[in-house]
Amino acid sequence: VMGFVSKIGGFFQRAWRLGVNEPKKVIHCVKVGLALSLVSLFYYMRPLYEGVGGNAMWAVMTVVVVFEYTVGASLCKCVNRATGTFLAGALGVGVHWVASHSGERFEPIILQGSVFLLATAATFSRFIPSIKARFDYGAMIFILTFSLVSVSGYRVEKLFELAHHRLSTIAIGTSICLITTMLFCPVWAGTELHNLIKNNMEKLSDSLDGCVTDYFTTNKTETSDKRLQGYKCALNSKATEESLANFARWEPAHGGFNFGHPWKEYVKVGASLRSCAYCIEALNGSINSEAKAPDALKNHLSHFCMRLSSKSSAVMKELAAVIATMKKSTKIDFMVEEMRSAVQELEGALKSLSKQPIQAKIGEAAVTLQPIVVTLVEVVPLVTVSSLLIEIAARTEKLAGD
Amino acid sequence: VMGFVSKIGGFFQRAWRLGVNEPKKVIHCVKVGLALSLVSLFYYMRPLYEGVGGNAMWAVMTVVVVFEYTVGASLCKCVNRATGTFLAGALGVGVHWVASHSGERFEPIILQGSVFLLATAATFSRFIPSIKARFDYGAMIFILTFSLVSVSGYRVEKLFELAHHRLSTIAIGTSICLITTMLFCPVWAGTELHNLIKNNMEKLSDSLDGCVTDYFTTNKTETSDKRLQGYKCALNSKATEESLANFARWEPAHGGFNFGHPWKEYVKVGASLRSCAYCIEALNGSINSEAKAPDALKNHLSHFCMRLSSKSSAVMKELAAVIATMKKSTKIDFMVEEMRSAVQELEGALKSLSKQPIQAKIGEAAVTLQPIVVTLVEVVPLVTVSSLLIEIAARTEKLAGD
Repeated sequence: VMGFVSKIGGFFQRAWRLGVNEPKKVIHCVKVGLALSLVSLFYYMRPLYEGVGGNAMWAVMTVVVVFEYTVGASLCKCVNRATGTFLAGALGVGVHWVASHSGERFEPIILQGSVFLLATAATFSRFIPSIKARFDYGAMIFILTFSLVSVSGYRVEKLFELAHHRLSTIAIGTSICLITTMLFCPVWAGTELHNLIKNNMEKLSDSLDGCVTDYFTTNKTETSDKRLQGYKCALNSKATEESLANFARWEPAHGGFNFGHPWKEYVKVGASLRSCAYCIEALNGSINSEAKAPDALKNHLSHFCMRLSSKSSAVMKELAAVIATMKKSTKIDFMVEEMRSAVQELEGALKSLSKQPIQAKIGEAAVTLQPIVVTLVEVVPLVTVSSLLIEIAARTEKLAGD
Repeated sequence: VMGFVSKIGGFFQRAWRLGVNEPKKVIHCVKVGLALSLVSLFYYMRPLYEGVGGNAMWAVMTVVVVFEYTVGASLCKCVNRATGTFLAGALGVGVHWVASHSGERFEPIILQGSVFLLATAATFSRFIPSIKARFDYGAMIFILTFSLVSVSGYRVEKLFELAHHRLSTIAIGTSICLITTMLFCPVWAGTELHNLIKNNMEKLSDSLDGCVTDYFTTNKTETSDKRLQGYKCALNSKATEESLANFARWEPAHGGFNFGHPWKEYVKVGASLRSCAYCIEALNGSINSEAKAPDALKNHLSHFCMRLSSKSSAVMKELAAVIATMKKSTKIDFMVEEMRSAVQELEGALKSLSKQPIQAKIGEAAVTLQPIVVTLVEVVPLVTVSSLLIEIAARTEKLAGD
């Protein structure tokens, strides 16, 4: 029993920490509660037509289903819901009319057949990537509304009335939802994406610098592991970035972003960042491998390695600043030049190393020459990737318009 | 206009190709149509209580919302929907009873307050990772049902009747849904996960072998790019693997898998595969970099490199076969041993290289010694990772029970 109690206690402790760390999420929860209270108050004030079975429930349902964490996601769902309902309703009424005019024998066949065909087609459309990304929810609502209309045994006149009620309740639900989500501490998908990319870039820069420094300095300064592992959050952020970019397109102008901000460029920058992170992952792996390099070799190269890693992490930092301020940096070209010269110096150092005298001096070290070369040469593709990143980021900034 | 027509034509062509390539998805669509026809037929036969507003729509809605591609996902949603509705219904009736006994002045306050508080709490719970993974949908349904019950102005006796109707329609919906999904060509999340891991492993092995061979053989045999790029699908499969593993836990015994099959081990194997894929990505990057190694050096090392890569890709292939047949392989230990010896040979070759005579012979090649070493030494961490993978896979097979 005690184990169970402590488990529950631990659960609440974790939940509490989550709330304290991310107050935005708590605010979102309060907003959901608020929107629901508003919509239920709205219907509590006016007498309900037919109780739960009536139309009020569509408004409540809309709020519950449509309210998402970011404004973009909510907007996307609202538009999808409205369009899906409208299209399916119109089509359903049409099919109903045809069925009712084709005699009693054919009526059920037409109705059943149309439900089967349209449900199959709409479900298939949900597998097509371009539709899935934007209209997945709309297709589901389409199927739902169409089946409901077909199953109902109503006459066409009654259906029009019903459609009118249903559309107006959905309008009430969506507007309450959008007002709450946009007026009280809105969370914009665009801003989230912007910050995500910026933070990932900073974390990558930190962990690149941190892990190379850690390797070459003899007195470990207990650099927090968290900082070194920062690059890991860039490894698996693809899905998040893409969905945020997708939602951001629906959002109106906010903060420094106009409607039609080139969000797709952020996805590209994210992809380059990820390929950097893969390199850092490989670098980290070889640094932590068992084989250790002799100190003499290490000392010979440490200066160049650390110079290169600090230059490239500085470039990344600067790029993060460029993204943050959305202003072209004057320093960036100079810094890239510095980074390139650091690459050349390192290559020169490697050359001299393979030519002479160190190798002769530490004859037995030749065995362990290998692990240290790993760390060096793996930095090189990383640098090429990051210079690639610079180009892309520069293009982003051009596209961003300032 | 012509552009628009050709665009639409292209869209349908892509959709057609999708359907031809993945007949399973087409079957899924037909199944959805079938389930909907069944449920609407069911209600078409019996007179509807109150038309669309009545309870029939809950059955239709359940089918539309709950029907997912894999059996596990459908089951998970069914359980979530039933539990969420039941809990929220019970709680809602309780709050309603309390409210109706506390006087007219307090009734709306209690009702509104409870909606606000519970909606906030339930939304917050959806942010907690352990709940999000399993009960996200249940929490949403909880909020929905609770608000509906609270908003309704019904007396408690009427509510019981309503709850009974609603639960029975949901039961009808879920059972039609589950019967259709499990009887006609079921798609098991477990099998999907199993095949995903197996295929990824084979693709990794192929592209490791392919890209090293491609680099060292002078006459390019036009190895299909597709094969070389195979490792890329392992890079971003984390989310898919985790959700499949999550759904697979809900599934009953099927094929060679019992209920309680250690699906979590698949996620671990997937993670090791991903770290292998990161290494291959880095390897690929350095192979495709501009700096070229001189042929003399290349020839000296190509034998060892290709031997090592073919050994490690053979180990991966064998592991994929182990996973496919779920039988312990007798060859695997031997193959790992071979791979280790290949690593040592390569290390030896590197040693001799750094000691002498090749370096003296091709003095100017020292400059370009670096890129070739990259390819070699990056294979080494890859090998360590894949030997790690072997351990994990071996453990999986032990846990899998045969």
